[in-house]
Amino acid sequence: MKVRVTEETCPYRLVLEHVTSRWGVLILLALEKRTHRFSELRREIGRVSEKMLAQTLQTLERDGFVRRDARPVIPPHVDYSLTPLGREAATQVRSLAEWTERRLPAVQTAREEYDSAKG
Amino acid sequence: MKVRVTEETCPYRLVLEHVTSRWGVLILLALEKRTHRFSELRREIGRVSEKMLAQTLQTLERDGFVRRDARPVIPPHVDYSLTPLGREAATQVRSLAEWTERRLPAVQTAREEYDSAKG
Repeated sequence: MKVRVTEETCPYRLVLEHVTSRWGVLILLALEKRTHRFSELRREIGRVSEKMLAQTLQTLERDGFVRRDARPVIPPHVDYSLTPLGREAATQVRSLAEWTERRLPAVQTAREEYDSAKG
Repeated sequence: MKVRVTEETCPYRLVLEHVTSRWGVLILLALEKRTHRFSELRREIGRVSEKMLAQTLQTLERDGFVRRDARPVIPPHVDYSLTPLGREAATQVRSLAEWTERRLPAVQTAREEYDSAKG
């Protein structure tokens, strides 16, 4: 498949931005492990605000990556899980995130060399 | 490998942002095909400003992904190519970009369903 690198406004750009956004990455990786309630996700992900977490979940739900299940139980709660499409997205993002983490020492070495050559 | 999803300030975050940035993606994909001069890159990538292209190339050079060769010829020019580390980054990014492009129709269908259910 040919990625159309010359088109600066490809429609896929927006999808790429959603799955590689700061909270998007963390949500996909957390939900890949298991279904989470909203409060569990918030704890898992760290100091994300309630509003930002809710917005990102809504974006990922609209994209078809996340399923939202309001459970009719007492007390009520909402379960978030990945759709099959979301699971594919999570696999892609995990691969990229793991590569990035694995190669971080090489990047840090390169930065030090660059900075000392310029300094 | 375990990606530390609970750390909101992982140092790998910044690398991930560089390789998935708008121009970062396009530069990695273009240089994966072949070495480019600055002017060739600019034409290939589209309406990126000279300043933004230069900044992004410098970021990727500092990260150790891009090699910059000033050619001592007349007229002088500068060649940009990928380092082995940059080639790895390009492979990862291409996989994600191709997946995104391939699954875009599914995302668009999901968005339409979401919007009509909310509408």
